[in-house]
Amino acid sequence: MKLSKMHLKTLREVPNEAEIPSHVLLLRAGMIRKLVSGVYGFMPLGWRSVRKIEDIVRQEMDAAGGQEIHMSAVQPAELWQESGRWNAYGPELWRLKDRNGREFCLGPTHEEIFTDIVRNDISSYRQLPMNLYQIQTKYRDEARPRFGLMRSREFIMKDAYSFDRDYEGLDKSYQEMYDAYDKIFTRCGLTFRPVEADTGAIGGSNSHEFTAISEVGESEIAYCTSCDMAATVERAECKDAAPQTEVEALPLEEVETPGTKTIEDVAAFLKLDKTQTMKALLFVTYDMEGNENGYVAAFVRGDRELNMTKLVNALDIPEHAIEFADEDKMSAATGCVGGFTGPVGLHDCKIVVDSELPGLKNLCAGACKEDHHLLNVNYGRDYEGDIVTDIKTLAEGDPCPVCGAPVKHARGIEVGQVFKLGTKYSDAMGAVYKDENMQSHPIVMGCYGIGVTRTLAAVVEQHHDDNGIIWPMSVAPYHVIITVMKPDDEIQAKVAEDLYEDLCSAGAEVLLDDRKERPGVKFKDADLLGIPIRITVGRGAADGVVEYKMRRDADKTEMAVEESKALALKTIQEEK
Amino acid sequence: MKLSKMHLKTLREVPNEAEIPSHVLLLRAGMIRKLVSGVYGFMPLGWRSVRKIEDIVRQEMDAAGGQEIHMSAVQPAELWQESGRWNAYGPELWRLKDRNGREFCLGPTHEEIFTDIVRNDISSYRQLPMNLYQIQTKYRDEARPRFGLMRSREFIMKDAYSFDRDYEGLDKSYQEMYDAYDKIFTRCGLTFRPVEADTGAIGGSNSHEFTAISEVGESEIAYCTSCDMAATVERAECKDAAPQTEVEALPLEEVETPGTKTIEDVAAFLKLDKTQTMKALLFVTYDMEGNENGYVAAFVRGDRELNMTKLVNALDIPEHAIEFADEDKMSAATGCVGGFTGPVGLHDCKIVVDSELPGLKNLCAGACKEDHHLLNVNYGRDYEGDIVTDIKTLAEGDPCPVCGAPVKHARGIEVGQVFKLGTKYSDAMGAVYKDENMQSHPIVMGCYGIGVTRTLAAVVEQHHDDNGIIWPMSVAPYHVIITVMKPDDEIQAKVAEDLYEDLCSAGAEVLLDDRKERPGVKFKDADLLGIPIRITVGRGAADGVVEYKMRRDADKTEMAVEESKALALKTIQEEK
Repeated sequence: MKLSKMHLKTLREVPNEAEIPSHVLLLRAGMIRKLVSGVYGFMPLGWRSVRKIEDIVRQEMDAAGGQEIHMSAVQPAELWQESGRWNAYGPELWRLKDRNGREFCLGPTHEEIFTDIVRNDISSYRQLPMNLYQIQTKYRDEARPRFGLMRSREFIMKDAYSFDRDYEGLDKSYQEMYDAYDKIFTRCGLTFRPVEADTGAIGGSNSHEFTAISEVGESEIAYCTSCDMAATVERAECKDAAPQTEVEALPLEEVETPGTKTIEDVAAFLKLDKTQTMKALLFVTYDMEGNENGYVAAFVRGDRELNMTKLVNALDIPEHAIEFADEDKMSAATGCVGGFTGPVGLHDCKIVVDSELPGLKNLCAGACKEDHHLLNVNYGRDYEGDIVTDIKTLAEGDPCPVCGAPVKHARGIEVGQVFKLGTKYSDAMGAVYKDENMQSHPIVMGCYGIGVTRTLAAVVEQHHDDNGIIWPMSVAPYHVIITVMKPDDEIQAKVAEDLYEDLCSAGAEVLLDDRKERPGVKFKDADLLGIPIRITVGRGAADGVVEYKMRRDADKTEMAVEESKALALKTIQEEK
Repeated sequence: MKLSKMHLKTLREVPNEAEIPSHVLLLRAGMIRKLVSGVYGFMPLGWRSVRKIEDIVRQEMDAAGGQEIHMSAVQPAELWQESGRWNAYGPELWRLKDRNGREFCLGPTHEEIFTDIVRNDISSYRQLPMNLYQIQTKYRDEARPRFGLMRSREFIMKDAYSFDRDYEGLDKSYQEMYDAYDKIFTRCGLTFRPVEADTGAIGGSNSHEFTAISEVGESEIAYCTSCDMAATVERAECKDAAPQTEVEALPLEEVETPGTKTIEDVAAFLKLDKTQTMKALLFVTYDMEGNENGYVAAFVRGDRELNMTKLVNALDIPEHAIEFADEDKMSAATGCVGGFTGPVGLHDCKIVVDSELPGLKNLCAGACKEDHHLLNVNYGRDYEGDIVTDIKTLAEGDPCPVCGAPVKHARGIEVGQVFKLGTKYSDAMGAVYKDENMQSHPIVMGCYGIGVTRTLAAVVEQHHDDNGIIWPMSVAPYHVIITVMKPDDEIQAKVAEDLYEDLCSAGAEVLLDDRKERPGVKFKDADLLGIPIRITVGRGAADGVVEYKMRRDADKTEMAVEESKALALKTIQEEK
């Protein structure tokens, strides 16, 4: 493609709305285009890279036995009502009606549709296992779309679903997808880590997220420095502190602690370590219709962080059905006192206690009385929990739940997820097969997603510098950019044109920058666009010499035209 | 692909809902799957054919200088309000709101988005001409979705937009697309005809529809048997009858015509030829808000058919803003009398008169009085029209508007349309470029659509028999099907497997029917699926002999395995 004929508008300035490198650079390189908040279009170069990622995904999915299909983006409410997700999904589900008032949604995922396929088409164990996938536009009506392609409302996803006769089959299908994902993200040039993940609202038993390591990622992962434990922070198990079985319970004592509204304040005032305190977090929950459905007080040791995902799972409610309580209203109903709430004296409210608290003795807690705390609070004697379970976050430096070594945290971008659904959907929607003895069983399912457009953004996050993008060859929109210093110079034009034709005929994908712009503008654009190989045709052209440079390297080399051609083709072959 | 591993469910029965061959066969062959009315998914074989059509489209669009991009399906109302289409488009526009109540639609077409791109990105004549296209899922909330992929609510379309500095440039861009369409539909194996088309609601000056000839098509075209005039019936000009300048106007006369509510009745009763009568068609129109906006009476010669498209264009209102009037209500307001309405005595209603009526003398018309007609009604003396223009349909046998030979009608499927938009959108939305003298001009646009999924259906309409589909090689899901008579027979299994491997390695796309089914079932399925080449491995396998058959031919030939391989590869090469 000749740049003079191509629709390309690069920007020198950083667009106001863009905060992270991938968003800034994809906009500046004219690869994506914002339509409204969270909705982007892809311009010629950006779309080429998307299609390359799609092709990699397609090849590896096919190699793993997946069969590509294509289902509608618009889905009828009835199917979502059958699975129970119509109400459970929350406001991210983008709903609409047709001209007859029938309800639909724009699919964020396709479990219902694919379950509907198999319950209609599959009758016998002989038809299993099966893996169906699609690459398709998906929708989430995000409250705060941001970071460009990272969290958008319309995006391209590959979603696959496996169907097996039993959990052993599911384990195999799951592992095949896990391995395929490994190949896909490796081929895309990503540094990533599969981490154990929460199974959340989709329901199911086991899941891994494929996380591209990046400072700007929205996922926080915890990993062990000595074993291979890695999990999202939402999911990571946290080891309880050892129970203080030897310590004697002291008598409960109320003390005045004026103005000590935070754990820091009260620990300092009472000269206690924070591990000798407990803290309360107060919530209100909602039912399906959005009406208030009772209060919740969650208690963790004073130095711990509450893990919202674990709390929501413990309560068995959707993520959007809980929020921080209005303290005044909650106080009237339950006796809590903002800044001074403890488990003793609370009423009409569900109490969730972190699993390590029952083992700890003589803790300091709020007294449910302004400016007062209680000392020597002990589980069983002074308070009990409606639910006792792990609701704390595994913090950096905490012992690894597997081997005990200190864990580290890192941020990453969730580019893929593999998920053991089990029979959640086949039970709800009646997807069964008959075995050899004509006995019916629910089909055992897995689901497997890859954010195609998010992967594009993740690649840019990991491959850029101050001047622009540095595409890995596999997903670069073009392999080579030929920059002509003076397109009006006949020799330069001829050398460049011949090289362009030769490389194209040999199967390389080449951009010829034949625009009548100053060399500085062209070099800046070439760096911004990030094409892996740049061949500059300048004064040396008269002697058959060009300049060869990899975008990722600082140094450039002068060489004969023929040599540059051979080197480019070899490099493309090795890296694509 | 081995059929034993593939998700395929063929049906023996004709699904109830399906009326036309493509719908029946695509469902029976398990290639498409209905989700709800007008919404289909594509199963593995169907999706392969869709992707082949997409690839043909992409190759020819790229060869014609198009640049592929990908814009969002969800479009903000604001852009449609700018162009004026938010109100004008009618209920086919599938509207929705986001969680903040902001209005969007699911794009049926993308003129606004593409105009928005160029008004932002294009500033100079040096950036023109340009052609941008996309292949994307589109939406129309059809009142009566039907015929499977032919008229569905979610469908895949290729839409392209050209941008030129003047109409001369547009003519060239238009011709390039016209030629590309010719190649695309030829490669898809369609028998088609480009016909002049109405420019309708999209607005613009000139248009051709590419119509695949088919009895079940929803387009009716009129074409000349002696010159190359071809147009949709909505669009086709109709020659006026010669004005009767020599005939003297006779005095108006009221006659009793009891019970003669139709033209046939009154002509028979008064012993007149229908060409000596005129007939009235009564309508009510609506404004943007859907409130009644006045009555319309349209008059054509008694033997003619009113052309609704021409009437709507004459009234300059959207298609959905007019419907047949309630006769009682209209009678009270305008003096019309159901079955006896003529132009004389009508009041408070817009009168549209077909262009040939002023030239005709002494016509018979309704008297606006129960059981009475008027004789010798003459334009100018007895009535006048608010609008006088061609509103009649060019009927089969009418003289060709170009050469006068009798025209014929045929039905067809509109698979593509090319359209000169001119400056409709660039004027409305302010898309301008600066010329060499820094003068601003509106960008001159064209738009070009291809119904990808509808093309698939059209191919099946033109290529099938009673037993199933007969795919042209270019869009067949696979090139070859190898049918193994007895998969349990070791020799047959080995010969088939080797042939399968060899053909695949040579680049052929092959289905191996290794299912443990009776031969009759396999042959029936092979015919239904319509794979172009069938190679049957049966008893002869022991002697290295197989049976070779083209799906389109009745006869089959026994030949050596090697020969069948060579012949298959040669045929694929020639036809794909």
